[in-house]
Amino acid sequence: MELPALISTLRTALESDTVHLLRERLDDVHPADLASALVEFAAQDLWTLLTVLPRAEQAEVFGYLPAEEQVNLSINISRRKLAPIIRQMSSDERADLFNRLSDEQRETLLPALAQAEREDLLRLTSHEEGTAGAIMTSDYAILAAELTVAQALDSLRREAPDKETIYSAYVVDAARKLIGVVSLRDLILAPLHMPIEELINHDPIYASVDMPQEEVASLIAKYDLLALPIVNSEHQMVGIVTYDDAMDVAAAEATEDFHKTATIGKLETSVKQAGIGLLYRKRVFWLVILVFGNIFSGAGIAHFEGIIASHIALLFFLPLLIGSSGNAGAQSGTLMVRALATGEIKLRDWGYLLGKECLVAGLLGLTMASAVVGLGWWRGGYDIAVVVSLTMMLVVLAGSLIGLSLPFLLSRFKLDPATASGPLITSIADVAGVVLYFSIATWYLGL
Amino acid sequence: MELPALISTLRTALESDTVHLLRERLDDVHPADLASALVEFAAQDLWTLLTVLPRAEQAEVFGYLPAEEQVNLSINISRRKLAPIIRQMSSDERADLFNRLSDEQRETLLPALAQAEREDLLRLTSHEEGTAGAIMTSDYAILAAELTVAQALDSLRREAPDKETIYSAYVVDAARKLIGVVSLRDLILAPLHMPIEELINHDPIYASVDMPQEEVASLIAKYDLLALPIVNSEHQMVGIVTYDDAMDVAAAEATEDFHKTATIGKLETSVKQAGIGLLYRKRVFWLVILVFGNIFSGAGIAHFEGIIASHIALLFFLPLLIGSSGNAGAQSGTLMVRALATGEIKLRDWGYLLGKECLVAGLLGLTMASAVVGLGWWRGGYDIAVVVSLTMMLVVLAGSLIGLSLPFLLSRFKLDPATASGPLITSIADVAGVVLYFSIATWYLGL
Repeated sequence: MELPALISTLRTALESDTVHLLRERLDDVHPADLASALVEFAAQDLWTLLTVLPRAEQAEVFGYLPAEEQVNLSINISRRKLAPIIRQMSSDERADLFNRLSDEQRETLLPALAQAEREDLLRLTSHEEGTAGAIMTSDYAILAAELTVAQALDSLRREAPDKETIYSAYVVDAARKLIGVVSLRDLILAPLHMPIEELINHDPIYASVDMPQEEVASLIAKYDLLALPIVNSEHQMVGIVTYDDAMDVAAAEATEDFHKTATIGKLETSVKQAGIGLLYRKRVFWLVILVFGNIFSGAGIAHFEGIIASHIALLFFLPLLIGSSGNAGAQSGTLMVRALATGEIKLRDWGYLLGKECLVAGLLGLTMASAVVGLGWWRGGYDIAVVVSLTMMLVVLAGSLIGLSLPFLLSRFKLDPATASGPLITSIADVAGVVLYFSIATWYLGL
Repeated sequence: MELPALISTLRTALESDTVHLLRERLDDVHPADLASALVEFAAQDLWTLLTVLPRAEQAEVFGYLPAEEQVNLSINISRRKLAPIIRQMSSDERADLFNRLSDEQRETLLPALAQAEREDLLRLTSHEEGTAGAIMTSDYAILAAELTVAQALDSLRREAPDKETIYSAYVVDAARKLIGVVSLRDLILAPLHMPIEELINHDPIYASVDMPQEEVASLIAKYDLLALPIVNSEHQMVGIVTYDDAMDVAAAEATEDFHKTATIGKLETSVKQAGIGLLYRKRVFWLVILVFGNIFSGAGIAHFEGIIASHIALLFFLPLLIGSSGNAGAQSGTLMVRALATGEIKLRDWGYLLGKECLVAGLLGLTMASAVVGLGWWRGGYDIAVVVSLTMMLVVLAGSLIGLSLPFLLSRFKLDPATASGPLITSIADVAGVVLYFSIATWYLGL
């Protein structure tokens, strides 16, 4: 069912008081689609519609609701009604929700959970935001190393309903240290009486709880994993991160980096839902900082007022020259920022890439110089043509090398290279452009 | 084993002629890691090391080698030796490799494949690049609707070794039309004698062969799928796209969009491996185009030479004002480009977002104006302060609205909104900035 049709089915059911008939009709609708439709309704109606579903599916649909909507329901629906859903949620989604609630709201919901769930929740929410610990789930399947394949399959069958995945099962020792991983595929293929010992991969890829979440997502992508086991500092297994969460993390990190390339701070919500105040705050900081950066370009121009006044034709080429410098810098900067983010290049590659950039930017500068030499001649004669084309070569080179090096410099000082945004590089390249242009003009044209 | 240790192990084995002893030592090394180590060796040594492995793993490691390396080996190793590996590769990786070979190379390798593989390969490579068809694999598991759970498990057990995944199995009718999907999890949980009919999800998420690959990746991410079935125009099942390929597609699309935000064309290889010529070609086009865009700014300045000559202090503020306009525009443009790419906003949201942007940009403009009013006074007195702060308000607003609208405009005309890069928006905002600034100055200061 398409989204508009689904919404109107739900609305009709509410209006004609036939909500109880929905259960069967919604049987084949994907929980993600149902969640997309439900956000169109107010809290009470949303709740009425949600509770038509079987309990397990209620929790699943609830997990697909946007974070703000989950919090909203948590505030508007009584604890007694909400608790059964919260209990059914997967442990990582439950922890996410709790992280977004106020202390007071948490205090209200915690007593509704069983002791074990409460402890699990407090453990999961204790990890720092942005780390493996903060996105992992504790609903993973454990197998004892001594089992046969038949016993392991039985065990997974029993545990499956509560686990995030049973396609990867983990083998731990008595101290809960991670020993290895077994895939359901291997279990299915093996003879029933075989000890699973023979199927265990004893050298599994794993990550520690404090690994940054973007590195977790990279590991999962690099090794094509369904799930990545997470261990604490004692190598004890504490959770897994599944591929679907890794996809969400990768997309969120890419969005954050995109925004950074244009000097926008991290938005915790979508641009559609973000309020005026939030958008203002996330944008104003760098805009103001860059104004003060641009003052240097202004001061550069003011410094050269003499040569400008005597050769006013030079002004015609100013936007073109500093623009080209900034554009070339934005290109090389963006290439580096993205390649550093994906791990394609490392800090140590700077020298090699700088050498290559000198050649590429040299060629670009030559091309750009030939593109403007005629224009220079036409607007200002031979002398201006020389100054403009010589400047173009140098500013494209300077802009490119600034753009290339800034992300490395930031990385070197443990700052996020993505802060080397287009606008920041452009501002720096502008200053270099102004100074180069008018210095060359002063030198060549004399005063 | 860490990468440097692995490389030195391999090197030692080669030098001491003990390559045959490696097989056991490499048993627990992940194929992706082995591939990363192997690229450090020349073709013949790489081949010697690769062929130490069991045949199935050879194909797996080969699949993890970078595309250029695969092509390189295909050229340097005789067909007779290479064919067994190519036969063992998964169908989508084999199709990728073939797409990168010359016609002549394909002709050499094709006869080495069995009839069925050859037909499969030609079918897979016939799809347009960038579509679901071009990234799908034909190694998916099929179940007949009449089976019991026990029979289905037996069937999957038999098919597993050749299939990309058995965690999702597909049910098709006699005409190969897609009827539904069954998960291995449900099969494991169900009683053995149950007909699988009862476990089939009859309304599975699927995609058509010509769906753009980024939409395929979005579907997989949205619905947390392990694999997405792909159907042709007759609704016949033709392949699946798995989550790991979707992750790669999402990362590649993000990289492409990142590069576009800085006017860099699509690189088919990594920035580290790209040659000088390739990097030059991918960057020069827009740099030159934008030079001609900047001519308008230059012409704007030339047009106002009179007012500039009489109030040379105005020049000090030029970089600052047009810079701010471009920066604000880059911010709103980037927000829109990314939100359009993730599907978070649609074309129809333009009006709503424009209204919101007017308020946000208005506030930003006010803030920026107050940031520069004092500077204006100090450098040029009361009149200049009025002109500069009034201009700042308007250029920030103009830049933001241009930045916000351009991606929608491009989308509306079926062009990629990511083409609305920072540099392009900056160039347009610059022209607007120059004209606004000097018009206001002319009007307020008179001539």
